[in-house]
Amino acid sequence: MIIATSKVYVSTKTIMQNKTEFRVNFQPIGRRVTVTHENSLLTAAQGAGINIASICGGIGICDSCKIRLIDGTLSETTLEEKAIFTEYELQSGNRLACQSYAQSDLIIEIPPESLTTPQRLQIEGQSQIIQIDPAVIPIEVEIQEPTINDLRSDTVRVIDTLKLEGVKPPLGFNVSVLEIMSPLIRKYQWHTRLAMRKGEVVAVLPPSTSLLGLAVDIGTTKLAAYLCDLNSGAILAKTGAMNPQTAFGEDVISRISYSNNPGGRKTLQTRLVDTINQLIQELCLQAGNNQHHPISDQIVEAVIVGNTAMHHLFAGLPVHQLGMAPYVPAVSNSLELDANRLDINIAPGAKIYLPPNIAGYIGADHVAMLLATGAWQSPKTTIALDIGTNTEISLAYNDQLLSCSCASGPAFEGAHIQAGMRAAPGAIERVQIINNEIRTQTIDNASPIGICGSGILDAIACLRQIKALDHRGSFIPTHPSVRQSDHNYEFLLINYSKSGNGRDIVITRQDVNEIQLAKGAIRSGIEALLDTLGISSTSVEEFIIAGAFGTYINIPSAIEIGMFPPLPLERFRQVGNAAGAGARQMLLSMEQRSVAEAIAKRVKYIELSTYPNFANIFSKSLFF
Amino acid sequence: MIIATSKVYVSTKTIMQNKTEFRVNFQPIGRRVTVTHENSLLTAAQGAGINIASICGGIGICDSCKIRLIDGTLSETTLEEKAIFTEYELQSGNRLACQSYAQSDLIIEIPPESLTTPQRLQIEGQSQIIQIDPAVIPIEVEIQEPTINDLRSDTVRVIDTLKLEGVKPPLGFNVSVLEIMSPLIRKYQWHTRLAMRKGEVVAVLPPSTSLLGLAVDIGTTKLAAYLCDLNSGAILAKTGAMNPQTAFGEDVISRISYSNNPGGRKTLQTRLVDTINQLIQELCLQAGNNQHHPISDQIVEAVIVGNTAMHHLFAGLPVHQLGMAPYVPAVSNSLELDANRLDINIAPGAKIYLPPNIAGYIGADHVAMLLATGAWQSPKTTIALDIGTNTEISLAYNDQLLSCSCASGPAFEGAHIQAGMRAAPGAIERVQIINNEIRTQTIDNASPIGICGSGILDAIACLRQIKALDHRGSFIPTHPSVRQSDHNYEFLLINYSKSGNGRDIVITRQDVNEIQLAKGAIRSGIEALLDTLGISSTSVEEFIIAGAFGTYINIPSAIEIGMFPPLPLERFRQVGNAAGAGARQMLLSMEQRSVAEAIAKRVKYIELSTYPNFANIFSKSLFF
Repeated sequence: MIIATSKVYVSTKTIMQNKTEFRVNFQPIGRRVTVTHENSLLTAAQGAGINIASICGGIGICDSCKIRLIDGTLSETTLEEKAIFTEYELQSGNRLACQSYAQSDLIIEIPPESLTTPQRLQIEGQSQIIQIDPAVIPIEVEIQEPTINDLRSDTVRVIDTLKLEGVKPPLGFNVSVLEIMSPLIRKYQWHTRLAMRKGEVVAVLPPSTSLLGLAVDIGTTKLAAYLCDLNSGAILAKTGAMNPQTAFGEDVISRISYSNNPGGRKTLQTRLVDTINQLIQELCLQAGNNQHHPISDQIVEAVIVGNTAMHHLFAGLPVHQLGMAPYVPAVSNSLELDANRLDINIAPGAKIYLPPNIAGYIGADHVAMLLATGAWQSPKTTIALDIGTNTEISLAYNDQLLSCSCASGPAFEGAHIQAGMRAAPGAIERVQIINNEIRTQTIDNASPIGICGSGILDAIACLRQIKALDHRGSFIPTHPSVRQSDHNYEFLLINYSKSGNGRDIVITRQDVNEIQLAKGAIRSGIEALLDTLGISSTSVEEFIIAGAFGTYINIPSAIEIGMFPPLPLERFRQVGNAAGAGARQMLLSMEQRSVAEAIAKRVKYIELSTYPNFANIFSKSLFF
Repeated sequence: MIIATSKVYVSTKTIMQNKTEFRVNFQPIGRRVTVTHENSLLTAAQGAGINIASICGGIGICDSCKIRLIDGTLSETTLEEKAIFTEYELQSGNRLACQSYAQSDLIIEIPPESLTTPQRLQIEGQSQIIQIDPAVIPIEVEIQEPTINDLRSDTVRVIDTLKLEGVKPPLGFNVSVLEIMSPLIRKYQWHTRLAMRKGEVVAVLPPSTSLLGLAVDIGTTKLAAYLCDLNSGAILAKTGAMNPQTAFGEDVISRISYSNNPGGRKTLQTRLVDTINQLIQELCLQAGNNQHHPISDQIVEAVIVGNTAMHHLFAGLPVHQLGMAPYVPAVSNSLELDANRLDINIAPGAKIYLPPNIAGYIGADHVAMLLATGAWQSPKTTIALDIGTNTEISLAYNDQLLSCSCASGPAFEGAHIQAGMRAAPGAIERVQIINNEIRTQTIDNASPIGICGSGILDAIACLRQIKALDHRGSFIPTHPSVRQSDHNYEFLLINYSKSGNGRDIVITRQDVNEIQLAKGAIRSGIEALLDTLGISSTSVEEFIIAGAFGTYINIPSAIEIGMFPPLPLERFRQVGNAAGAGARQMLLSMEQRSVAEAIAKRVKYIELSTYPNFANIFSKSLFF
C-alpha cells in the first residue's frame, strides 16, 4: 500500500505522430493541461496557472524551471540543458521546462524547488511504502433491541453482539462513547458501525461510514494537518496554519518562559487546540462534510507530532524543567490521550497517539522524520536534518543512530532580517547570478517587497561568489554594489525604483550575521555528530533535508555559505514535510508505531552544550 | 480487619463495689460519660447531650429508650422491662435506659431507633469484616536527580526507580499525574511517596503521607460521604447532605424527564458534583487539613454507589432510555472513571470505581447493600430491602438471589403528607399508644411542628390500633378523635395549642392514601418475589431493612399497617446505611469488588410491571 501519490503513476503512453495537441499530467500537484507542440512546457504550465519559477526568463541559462520526465516523449535535449545537467541527471529524466516541447501525452514531475511558494506549500513529504494496519477498525453490527424479556443494558447488549461477531474479549468502551452511545444506537435503529480499538468501542457511527484519521505536525512556527482514510490510506485533505503560539514568543525558550506565568501554560495549550480544531474543520470541508452527521465524528484516531516543547504544551505537560539545565522532558514515552480530554473535536472516543520524544530538544517530530525518510535504517552513512527555529540532526552510521539539536533561530523564517518576510507573494525566494548579473525570483512573480529564508540564503551565497563578502562575513567596501549606510556597509539587492513598495531592498551586515549564526549552528551540529564517530564530512553518502524551509533552499547556495558540507549534489535529498509523512505512517500502521518507539530507544543523544571542543567547532562553522 | 466499629469493643470490665461514679462508653456514637449510681442511664445520657428518645417520659411503659448492655453490670431488670421485652431479648442484653442504673463501668450500645434524628444521622451502617486490600498502595522512593550526564525524562526516571524498588512492569502514569508530576518531584526534592494503582502512578505525595479513600452513597434524596484511611480501614470522617437534584424533581422519573431538556443532564450532573465536592471539603476539614498541602490530594481512590439513575447522572451517561419502557440502563458493568474527568476534587489521578448496576431500577447501591449485609450469601431465607423514594428488594433462598424494584414514592420523606416534613427538630418521629393515649416524640424534644416519615408510619399504625381507620384506610366517623374537614374526615394528632407553630397537626384521608400506596408498593414487591419461588412470607427467616428511613421505623408499626409480613420481631434487622457500608468495603478491598461484580451477575431481576397477577397482589397489599 502506498501513501504518498508522488511516486505512483499509471502509464498512459500515447504517442501520435501527427497530433499537435497533447495532454500533460503535472505531478505531484495533479494538474492536467493541454499543450501544443509549439509552446514550451514552461509557457504551457504558466499559462495554466502553474507557477514554475524562471529566473533567467526562459532562455535556458539557469536551472530554476527544472522538471523531470516520467512518461512520454519530449523534444531533444538542448545544448543549454547539457551545460546545466550532468549526464546522470539527464539520464534520470531531468530537463528544463523552458527547453522542452511535448511530442506525446506526458507525465511530468515538477520538483518542489521549481514551484513558487504558494504551490510548493501543497507538496507532501515523501513517505515509505507501508502495510495499512490502523489502530481502529470498523465492525458493522445489528444489535437486538431491548424488550420486556430482554432487559440487558446497552453495554452488555453491544458486547454480546460483538462476541457473536467473533470479536475476542476483553471488550469495553471508551468512556466518552458511553456518554453518547444509548441515543445513537436508537437513532441508527440498532444497525450501526462500531469503530473498535484494541477491543474498545471508540465510536458509534451510521452503517457503512468510512473511518478517518488525523495526522498533525505541530512546528514551532507552522502547523500541517492531514485527513486520511484509515482503510485505503488515501490523503483526503490537507491544510496548514501558523502556530498561534508565535504571538507569545517566536522560539521555544520564550514560550517556555511565557508558560511560567499564571495560566500561561493553559493559554498556550488552548490557542494551539483552537487552531487544530480550525484545521480539522477545514479538512472536513475539503473532504466533504456529510449531510447526516459531521464528518469529524468519523475521525476515530489521530497522530500528532511536534518537538518536545510543542508536544508538552499540546498535551498539557509541565515545560518549566525544559527551560532549565539539564533540560529534561517531563515525558519521553509515547502517549495515548483521549481526544475529548484535550478538547480536540474529532470522535469523542478517539485516541490521540503522541510518539516518543528523544530528549528535551529532540522531539517526536524528529522520530517521525527518521521513520518517514527511512534514515533510521539506512545502510549508508546518512545525515538527516529538519531545519526549523530549532534544527534537529541525526547521523546514521553502521547501525548507530546519533542525534543532536541546535538553536538555529528564526532567521530562515525571515525574522531578524532587515528586509525579511515570510514566504508570501512578493518575497524574493531565489537569487542567482546569470551572466554576471544578480537575478531574483519572487513568489507569484509579484514585484519584490522583501526577502524570505531561501532568498536570503541564495543572496549571501551570491555575495560570496561575486566577492562582495569576505570569509568572516564582512562586506568588501571596494565592491561596486557595496555601499555605506550609517556606520556600516550594505548590499543593494533591488533598487527602490524596481521594488513593489518603493524602498530599496538591501542586505545588511546584521543580516549576514544572523545567517552566519543560524548556518553556523547547523553546521557545527553536523560536525559534532561526525566527530563523535570519527567520520569526515566527505564520507556522508546521503544527506536528507526535511521540513518546509529545507525543501525550498538551493543546495549549492547552502554549500557555498558552508551550512552543509561540500558533497556531490546527488547525495542530497530534499524530502519536504517528512515529520507529517511519518505521522501519517503511524496513523495508518501500528507496526510503524512500534518502529517509531524502537527508533526513539535506539537514538543516542549528543548534548552539544557539553560537547568537548564545541566552542571551537562552532566558531569555525561561522566562517564562509 | 474491621471496618465499622459498632461491633468491636475492647473489654474494659472494672467493677468496683464501693464506687458510686462510673464511666459509661456509649456506642456506636463513641461518647464517654461519667454517671452516678443514682441517675438512670436515660437521665445520664440526656444530661450529657445524647438525645435518647423517651416517649413515655421515662416511666418504663414504652420501648423508645431501648439500649443494649455490651459490657459491665447494670441494676436488676424491672417488671416494666419484663413486660416489654421477650425473654430472648432480655438475654441478649436489651434494657430500657430509663430503668437501668450503672453498677460498674459500662459499654452500652444505643440502637439507632433509640436516638432522635440528628444523632441518628451519624450512625453507620453495619458492614462485614473484611481483609484490607485496597486498589491503591504507597511506595516511597528516592529518585535520582537529572544531571548533564543523566538526561532521562521524568517519567523514565520514575519508572526506573520503581523497577529498582521491585515493582513489576508494566508501569505507567495516570495522565493527570503527568500534568503535575515534574514540578512536584522537584518540590519534594526527589523524595516522594507515590500512590500506585495496578502499576499506574495515580498520585505524587510528600514522604510519609497517608493514602485516603472516599466512599459516597448517592441517594435520590440524600448523600452520605465517608473518608477512610486506606491502610487501616478507619473511618476518619463522615458527613451527609441533601441531593441537590431534588430541586429538579423529587423522584427519579421527574429527574429523567428534566434531563431531556437541553443541558438538563449536564445541570443535574454539575449540581451533584458540586455537592460531592462540598462534602469532600467537609470531610477534609473534619479529618484535619494538612498545612503543607490540601488533604484532598491524599484521596487517591473513591467508590461511589447510587441507584441506576443517580449512577448514570453522576457519570454523565444517557438516562432517556431509563425513562422509557423497557427501562434499560446505558451501562450495567462496573466502571473506573477518572476523578479529574468528573471534576471531583480529589487527587487528580485518582480513579472512581462505580460498582455494577443490576437493572434500570436496581442500582449499584443495592449491590453494595447486599454485599454489606451479607444477604447475598445468607444460608437463611432472607429478604433484604432498602426503603427510599424507590425501594429495592432482594430475596435470597437456596443459592438463588431475586431482586425487584418498586416506586414507593417520597411519602416516607414527608412529601405529599399534609403536615409532612423532613426529619428535623420539631418533627414528630414517633407515635405510640401509652395507657390508651396517643403520645408523640419529636426530634430534639422540640415543640411539634410537623410529622416525618417514621412518625406518619407510627401514627397510621396507632389509628388502626385505636380503630379510627378501617382496613381500606377510611376513617371511622364515629371515632371520638375523627373529625370532619371540608368533604373529608381527618384525625387530630396535636392540637394547635400544643404545637410549635400554632396549627393543628392532623392526619388526612389523603395522607393515609399516600402511605397505603407506598407500603402497598413495598409489600407487593416482597410478595411477588416470594411468589416467584413459591415461598410463603412466614418462612422468611431474616428480614434486613437498610437505608436511613428503614433504620428509624418502628417494626411493629410497619407490620401493623401491613408494609412488612407479620414475622417474629427477632427476625428483623435494621442495618442503617448499608449501601454506604458496602461502598466502604469496596473502597478498602479489591476482593470485595470482585464479590460485588459476582453479586450483580447472580441476581435474577423480576420486572413487576409484567409480573403475572401483579395488579391483584398490589391491590391486596393496599389494605391494612
